[in-house]
Amino acid sequence: MNEINVAFIGFGTVGKGVYDTIHSHQQQLNDVTGKKVEVSIIVIQDPDKYQDIQEDIVVTTDIQHVIDNPTIDVVFEAIVGKDPAYSHVKRCIKAGKHVITANKEMFATHGKELKLLAEYHGVALGFDATTAGGIPVIQTIQQLLRVNQIQKIQAILNGTSNYILTEMREKQLPFQRALQQAQDLGYAESDPTNDVEGFDALFKLMILSDVSFGKQPLQQHIHRRGITAIKAEDLQSTQQKRIKHIATIEKANGVLTATVEPLLISEDHPLFAIEGVDNAIHIQTDIVGDLTLSGPGAGALPTASAMIEEFCTFFSHNQRQAHATLSI
Amino acid sequence: MNEINVAFIGFGTVGKGVYDTIHSHQQQLNDVTGKKVEVSIIVIQDPDKYQDIQEDIVVTTDIQHVIDNPTIDVVFEAIVGKDPAYSHVKRCIKAGKHVITANKEMFATHGKELKLLAEYHGVALGFDATTAGGIPVIQTIQQLLRVNQIQKIQAILNGTSNYILTEMREKQLPFQRALQQAQDLGYAESDPTNDVEGFDALFKLMILSDVSFGKQPLQQHIHRRGITAIKAEDLQSTQQKRIKHIATIEKANGVLTATVEPLLISEDHPLFAIEGVDNAIHIQTDIVGDLTLSGPGAGALPTASAMIEEFCTFFSHNQRQAHATLSI
Repeated sequence: MNEINVAFIGFGTVGKGVYDTIHSHQQQLNDVTGKKVEVSIIVIQDPDKYQDIQEDIVVTTDIQHVIDNPTIDVVFEAIVGKDPAYSHVKRCIKAGKHVITANKEMFATHGKELKLLAEYHGVALGFDATTAGGIPVIQTIQQLLRVNQIQKIQAILNGTSNYILTEMREKQLPFQRALQQAQDLGYAESDPTNDVEGFDALFKLMILSDVSFGKQPLQQHIHRRGITAIKAEDLQSTQQKRIKHIATIEKANGVLTATVEPLLISEDHPLFAIEGVDNAIHIQTDIVGDLTLSGPGAGALPTASAMIEEFCTFFSHNQRQAHATLSI
Repeated sequence: MNEINVAFIGFGTVGKGVYDTIHSHQQQLNDVTGKKVEVSIIVIQDPDKYQDIQEDIVVTTDIQHVIDNPTIDVVFEAIVGKDPAYSHVKRCIKAGKHVITANKEMFATHGKELKLLAEYHGVALGFDATTAGGIPVIQTIQQLLRVNQIQKIQAILNGTSNYILTEMREKQLPFQRALQQAQDLGYAESDPTNDVEGFDALFKLMILSDVSFGKQPLQQHIHRRGITAIKAEDLQSTQQKRIKHIATIEKANGVLTATVEPLLISEDHPLFAIEGVDNAIHIQTDIVGDLTLSGPGAGALPTASAMIEEFCTFFSHNQRQAHATLSI
């Protein structure tokens, strides 16, 4: 076949970002996959909302159109919340479709099961976009740190909280003012609980845990504390230290310990310089030592980048690996 | 076959690091490749120098032993300088062996030709360890940023220079004292020209250029300036700025521009916080925006990590990609 047919579930900021990237980077996609990538179906709640979708694309509210269509190879899932994302993804996998999801809340809870299901059905399941937006941390761990044993991860996984803390410190703003500013800029939802109370970081930490250690701590065992009680004065006490909202997961003596909390870190800490909406992940391993990846933790294009690049790892027709395996 | 047989060319710090890692991580290698990794031959200049090599391994001064042995699948090359590394690697490729090299000087000059040769002979050629030590930057660009178009890279690629600049600033040392300290600690060679004059960073920039833009600037067109003329006073003038030795490559209007030089950067620059022997690479692309990778730029284990992980991308038996390609 000379085409890869894709469907979208959800067409908000992220879905639209992937759609636009597929069209703006058709040539690059063709070079990497050797095929033309065609968008066939978009499943959304309100089909009348989008007028600028190409006419030959089916726009529907019904996931059944995707399930029943044998030409759909890949589904990009980018809706918010566990349901109906979980059942949609499960049905797509069972129908033999590769799935790439950006849904952290759903994947933090159901990721382990969905991975097994995908393996059973012989399809690929991508979830790099669930964690740290455009930073390819999931793929780095899965593909580039396979022999290295990860010992500890410390990360800034929520751009909204980091933005609020940065603004509070730099401009001496109280929490509520900085939050309002984040909301005005579209960084924070009208209900910011998931971000500022650390639930969003916790979901991402659960996903990182499974990828890094092959298991997850129980959610109720993760010590989680948000940033709502922090005062601007706390942040300005010293130039040499900063309060950052840090997610930590560590394996020691076979036991996983996970926390999401504000920590006072000094200038030589690898997360000290991570400011604004950026995310960063500091990984400690037994061979390479310490690696840090940083970049945009959210946004339409960065998240689209993670999804599109993962798509390419599934469909690359020019991997060196193929050569190597053949000749052994 | 249930084994992967490997040979070493060169058995200094890096070669020994790979050898030790193969033995300490035999189980992980087995899990990833599905095979046992066996060291068969080590080619070194002075075979009497090493006493702690397993008895069943052939230790020789003659590369011909590797070329003539059809059971050798992979060669790890970790010697210094262009020759005889270049001719050794060429012969190994022509003999159908996969090669993984850490030799930046050789690869900066001959990489393009060797890649074509490897493709022609259907073998894999790994060179992640040539650039930024343990930071998997080559593989990140090759595997995880395939649709993204890189626009600009700014990087600290020489740990010795960065260590010297950090010590000069923090401890108010003159250049010669900081250099001496780097030599005492084994970070700098007795002839430090390659490091402090920016040749080492230039070699790595040439390699990054080919991977990122598919072409290299002419070496004589790269504006290169070392750190020997910098004074401790220059470094302490202000707390808000730092002088870093930065390699830059940029493509604008189809033209590549490359420089290696000391630059005064401010606190919000992504390379500002990179201190001591660490390396970092800041990559600007059209989709994800800005990504930064940082970590150990040299050393036995970090470099071994890059070589071993690259080895695994050649021989992984459980890539999701295989599934996906099959079902399309």
